[in-house]
Amino acid sequence: MSAGAADRLGGMRSLLATVSDLHDTLALLQWDQQTCMPGAAAGGRAEQLATVSRLAHERSTDPELGRLLEALEPEADPETDDGALVRVALRDFRRATRLPSELVEDLARATALADSAWAAARQASDWGRFAPHLERIVALVRETAEAYGFEEHPLDPLIDIHEPGMTRARLAAVFAELREALLPMVRTVAEQPDGREAPLHGDFDEAAQEAFGREVVARFGYDWRRGRQDRAVHPFCTGIGPDDVRITTRFDRTFLQTALFSTLHEAGHAMYEQGVSRAYARGALAGGASTGVHESQSRLWENQVGRSRAFWRAFYPRLRELFPAALQTVELEAFYRAVNRAAPTPIRVEADELTYNLHVLLRFELEAGLLEGSLAVADLPEVWNARMAEYLGITPAGDAEGVLQDVHWSSGAFGYFPTYTIGNLLSAQLFEAALAARPEIPEEMERGAFDALRAWLAEHVWRHGRKYDPDDLVTRATGRPMEPGPYLRYLREKFGELYELPVEVAAEA
Amino acid sequence: MSAGAADRLGGMRSLLATVSDLHDTLALLQWDQQTCMPGAAAGGRAEQLATVSRLAHERSTDPELGRLLEALEPEADPETDDGALVRVALRDFRRATRLPSELVEDLARATALADSAWAAARQASDWGRFAPHLERIVALVRETAEAYGFEEHPLDPLIDIHEPGMTRARLAAVFAELREALLPMVRTVAEQPDGREAPLHGDFDEAAQEAFGREVVARFGYDWRRGRQDRAVHPFCTGIGPDDVRITTRFDRTFLQTALFSTLHEAGHAMYEQGVSRAYARGALAGGASTGVHESQSRLWENQVGRSRAFWRAFYPRLRELFPAALQTVELEAFYRAVNRAAPTPIRVEADELTYNLHVLLRFELEAGLLEGSLAVADLPEVWNARMAEYLGITPAGDAEGVLQDVHWSSGAFGYFPTYTIGNLLSAQLFEAALAARPEIPEEMERGAFDALRAWLAEHVWRHGRKYDPDDLVTRATGRPMEPGPYLRYLREKFGELYELPVEVAAEA
Repeated sequence: MSAGAADRLGGMRSLLATVSDLHDTLALLQWDQQTCMPGAAAGGRAEQLATVSRLAHERSTDPELGRLLEALEPEADPETDDGALVRVALRDFRRATRLPSELVEDLARATALADSAWAAARQASDWGRFAPHLERIVALVRETAEAYGFEEHPLDPLIDIHEPGMTRARLAAVFAELREALLPMVRTVAEQPDGREAPLHGDFDEAAQEAFGREVVARFGYDWRRGRQDRAVHPFCTGIGPDDVRITTRFDRTFLQTALFSTLHEAGHAMYEQGVSRAYARGALAGGASTGVHESQSRLWENQVGRSRAFWRAFYPRLRELFPAALQTVELEAFYRAVNRAAPTPIRVEADELTYNLHVLLRFELEAGLLEGSLAVADLPEVWNARMAEYLGITPAGDAEGVLQDVHWSSGAFGYFPTYTIGNLLSAQLFEAALAARPEIPEEMERGAFDALRAWLAEHVWRHGRKYDPDDLVTRATGRPMEPGPYLRYLREKFGELYELPVEVAAEA
Repeated sequence: MSAGAADRLGGMRSLLATVSDLHDTLALLQWDQQTCMPGAAAGGRAEQLATVSRLAHERSTDPELGRLLEALEPEADPETDDGALVRVALRDFRRATRLPSELVEDLARATALADSAWAAARQASDWGRFAPHLERIVALVRETAEAYGFEEHPLDPLIDIHEPGMTRARLAAVFAELREALLPMVRTVAEQPDGREAPLHGDFDEAAQEAFGREVVARFGYDWRRGRQDRAVHPFCTGIGPDDVRITTRFDRTFLQTALFSTLHEAGHAMYEQGVSRAYARGALAGGASTGVHESQSRLWENQVGRSRAFWRAFYPRLRELFPAALQTVELEAFYRAVNRAAPTPIRVEADELTYNLHVLLRFELEAGLLEGSLAVADLPEVWNARMAEYLGITPAGDAEGVLQDVHWSSGAFGYFPTYTIGNLLSAQLFEAALAARPEIPEEMERGAFDALRAWLAEHVWRHGRKYDPDDLVTRATGRPMEPGPYLRYLREKFGELYELPVEVAAEA
């Protein structure tokens, strides 16, 4: 590398470090807002967030950064970490500078209004209050897509924000395959008597719940010296730098599932952040490869591990020890069936592994229709309910538990929902590859050990941060780009046995 | 006001709001560092703090802000809030722009090195390790004083940072009066048998300690909806905006005094911040009039209230209820004597009301000598120990509990120590004025009520924020500028009775 290039690289790193520090600071402001901040301070915190966001945006779009990146692009070796840094940073820079500031402001204003209108509309289950706001947001999001530019579909550049390289067309093919496989399984499961999750309801001391979660994720490999856990209404994980990756959960004294699985889920996100190569700290390669890849790590530890028989063979004795009264008559197998109970529900966030992706499919189809203009906002509730009946066989009692249930659209987040399904698919695809490479994983899990699994993920996923785009990362790790096969195999095997599905339903198509 | 002036005022307010948001953000980064942050994240947090500090400094010294303030100064009415805002903001701006950035960087580097050298030197009680660092810092602080400019003494501009309008000469006169009055009292008290604080030692459940502190400061008027309390090794109060003023404390299970009085102290600071006029939020008038006035509010609630017989008549029954085993044989009067035990100690932060200001006097004299060049760094330990013997009749066992005990000088904070004494003096002066204006205060306190006192402080101190300089504020509130008389009257009355001092010692000179 020439001396000039080294100088440019140093200058770029220094500018990116400031942006990174500001993003870490924003993460702390938000973490604190959800965990510690007195409620009365919401107005002041909104101002602090707006100011630091504005400064972060200014620094992200600093023309000097753009000049350095443009000069570095042709001279950096794309195979090296520096080359990847330049490539990713330039993509971030172009994205950050592509939207006219007027559009950004219009969208900020519209979503601020829509967020509170949505909350009120959901509270009253009154679609009419939200519809005009959504009209406005769809128009602005469509403008946003045009400002980013797209060839095939306005959803493409919006998906690309979360999943570099992914398109609506590719997702549509994936969802078609999922739909065909899942619908008959869901129908068969729904016909069976429910009630398997009874063992999870009872009286479960919160301190004991917390202790159990802490023990488990420490065994997973979450590094408590570089993190902490707090309570939050909506659990999340946040990275405030590589040595400060915090998780949150919420406890329900009467329902064991809530805190337990959210803790495993958030710890999955956190281990990913903690596992990114330290060389990437304070630069554009820190963080996860995509929202979907991030979600794959949380889902993998929550589901492939945390809802497996092997896991509960290791940990159920300890759980029973902590809750002797509630669990003394519940055998391991009944408990395993409880945490894997499947049943259609109108609410996405309460959905199980089998039905979850149908909720996503529905939203994916609707938001594509809204943006391309083939679906009018006014028709949304009707279409929502019709698809819900078709996919899950249920009808929401009202719009509050139907079309108004999610916050995403009111905040302008179109193209985000599919990342949940990408996470699910990749969790199975990566776990299958890990099992193939390290066959000792199941036996380790039965002993409550996770060394081989953790080492494989660290090596093939975590350490790379944002160096590789998702498809590249997944192909390097599993030999193939993302595909629904492994997830469907996983579901068929697990639910085929749990619900004694007829062979033609459970077998691969 | 002309349309142009209104525009300038609006522009100035907007620039100041950004600075204020960044300072609030720094306060959160620091609060989190002391209370929540995983220890491993210290390096990353230092970077985040450095970046946000740098941006805050850039915005504080924005030439556009300077132009607006210079234009506004002649046209703003100094009697109005807007006039005060312009005056205070212009003073802040001039101070922020007066230091050459090279000097700021040199000082930052030197203090970073000195801070760790000081910690190691104190640990080993080895003055030689710290002395060369202090030499360097004294030279840089002296340069700083020259950059700010001064007429009489290099300590003047450094004191002025914390206490606008205060000078070394005026403080020297105050300290001379204190010294003359305190020395004979301290000598007489030191001759008496010690051991009064025995009731404070024992086994005190931390949750009960916390509950008691929370109840008391809620009765004081600390607004828990706009604050919270956490644990920190060195207790502090921090404002992250007017609706988010947090206090911290630390618990010692074996010593009741630690958490209790630090809680009352920090709540005093916090009520001041919570009581500033809402019209001053996100501007240069938010916060306290000076460091000393701020300290007066913490000292007032800690000492004038929290160490009074009236207060304990109200709260001792409740304390005994919480700690029946430890306190059942301790009568109210013995407890009152315990919390007011006085005895010379080499350590400032452990000093009582009677001896505290002599610790400050010693430091004030030494830092003046260092800056004016009449005292060499090399001679500091010897002079320290000689003055300690003269003022308090004791000799430190080593430099760790002598000249190395405080962090201040290693961080470049010269001119800060006197604010502790200013706080003590003003606590008594303001309390005396409140008692004169609202004679029902003592009777209210005996009932555990503080309405009259709180209302008087809110009206005469809190709401004004930084609008008035300390002397102006104190004169408006008490009829006179700061003077030692009220504090000496308070000490003579209290300790005259507690230690049965002979009349010639306890009576006013």
